Amino acid sequence: MSTVSESYLVGLIGEGITQSLTPPMQEREADRHGVRYLYRPVDLTEIGLDGSAAGELLRQGRDLGFNAFNITHPCKQLVMGQLDDISDDARRLGAVNTVLIQGGSFIGHNTDFSGFGTALGEGLPGAGLGSVVQLGTGGAGAAVAYALLKAGVQHLSLMDLDADRVAARVDTLKGFFPDQVITAVGQAELPQALAAAEGLVNATPVGMHMHPGLPLDAGLLEQRHWVADVVYRPVETELIRTATAKGCRVLDGGYMAVGQAADAFALITGRSPDAGRMRAHFLELIAQGR
Amino acid sequence: MSTVSESYLVGLIGEGITQSLTPPMQEREADRHGVRYLYRPVDLTEIGLDGSAAGELLRQGRDLGFNAFNITHPCKQLVMGQLDDISDDARRLGAVNTVLIQGGSFIGHNTDFSGFGTALGEGLPGAGLGSVVQLGTGGAGAAVAYALLKAGVQHLSLMDLDADRVAARVDTLKGFFPDQVITAVGQAELPQALAAAEGLVNATPVGMHMHPGLPLDAGLLEQRHWVADVVYRPVETELIRTATAKGCRVLDGGYMAVGQAADAFALITGRSPDAGRMRAHFLELIAQGR
Repeated sequence: MSTVSESYLVGLIGEGITQSLTPPMQEREADRHGVRYLYRPVDLTEIGLDGSAAGELLRQGRDLGFNAFNITHPCKQLVMGQLDDISDDARRLGAVNTVLIQGGSFIGHNTDFSGFGTALGEGLPGAGLGSVVQLGTGGAGAAVAYALLKAGVQHLSLMDLDADRVAARVDTLKGFFPDQVITAVGQAELPQALAAAEGLVNATPVGMHMHPGLPLDAGLLEQRHWVADVVYRPVETELIRTATAKGCRVLDGGYMAVGQAADAFALITGRSPDAGRMRAHFLELIAQGR
Repeated sequence: MSTVSESYLVGLIGEGITQSLTPPMQEREADRHGVRYLYRPVDLTEIGLDGSAAGELLRQGRDLGFNAFNITHPCKQLVMGQLDDISDDARRLGAVNTVLIQGGSFIGHNTDFSGFGTALGEGLPGAGLGSVVQLGTGGAGAAVAYALLKAGVQHLSLMDLDADRVAARVDTLKGFFPDQVITAVGQAELPQALAAAEGLVNATPVGMHMHPGLPLDAGLLEQRHWVADVVYRPVETELIRTATAKGCRVLDGGYMAVGQAADAFALITGRSPDAGRMRAHFLELIAQGR
């Protein structure tokens, strides 16, 4: 019998995160692996701090025995200046959502992009990646676009109501993926882009409980499109429902939510999580109203 | 199924504590109760802080989701000024070894004394409490003396090589236990005190691996004495071995070590630990060289 049991203490730093499903997902998965795992949300709003406190919280957590932190809004960029090292992908993305504490050093990673990439492979195996349209280029959108290009999308059309944001994102991505075509499209060009596309990804908040509706004209969707959403509250968004009704293959937002948690779990523990088991638990939690 | 699982995050603040057995004892006991429990030692020496940092660490721990801390050398007194409330016993003892974080407030308790009291009742049921001699009045000694008087010892004789310390301790205790006899005895008076005593407690460090030997002349021990030790590394000190050989009833230091951990577990979780089970685990850990 080992005298030192394997255990992990993990936190999540961000605003409005007390309802996050990552803590129960990772804890349950750790239970299945027989390792002690405790995950605490650290809600900045609750403790009266703002995003600039992330670095200080990391250092306090290191002193108090934390092994890792997940990082979310509004700290994914802010935290980057506080780290000792950052993975190439996270550095390129300009966002860190996972910080490992190793030998007293802080190492930044990003599992939002990798989680979406894994989800795409698992949930939509064989999906055509020649041409894809993505709506929304905010935080989640940046990770999704990066994941799509890493996955091999040859032509990525990005649309965002914020023209400056989408232009900047296109420029950044072109630097990292010079051999792929990345274009910004306006709303008027969307029909043409979708007519040429094999897949559509919604990375806007439209479809959430508080922002119901469709992020585009339903008439633009055809059965031959695959459709992915990053929204997971509800899991079945109006977009997913509409696409399913048209016979499209779909990837709901739960896959990315589970993917980022599963990839973070793997980084933190060095163990391979069972993503299917985690998704089943995720859906159970959602069904319970979490 | 409950959507929010019961979980406890606990720390231990002190110096040179990485080998403490309280973390594995409490974690294992929690496992038996089916509650998620993670206990992290926060070694001040390792993180380059001194005892005055205890209050700041408590506040950081509160922000990061800790439910409680155990407190040990050199912080048991220092931490008292940082708390919102302190139990009557801990206040009288002038030492806190357990801080509960409840509704954002810090509540101090002392389970060193209660742990010894519980151990005495469990390990030496029916032990005569008319007259007891105690050696050593340092930190552990203060808790033991308080526990003995709470348990009903009618005449407590305290000996310490530091005459000022023992005199101050006697004065303090007299204020709380005015109807019991508490006297300081010098080394020359020890034979007379033991001749009149039913029990002896060693609360000095003599007998530890690094301080081997007996804390008194073996010739003073008689079969009719019960003998308790607070030293638990080794569990069988020279005093316990000598007393056992003479036919005395004995209480080794493991009982107090387990008692303080069990009582803290009860305060933190509101659950009743199985002290016998915890002692078996404790002995197993010691046997493993922990």
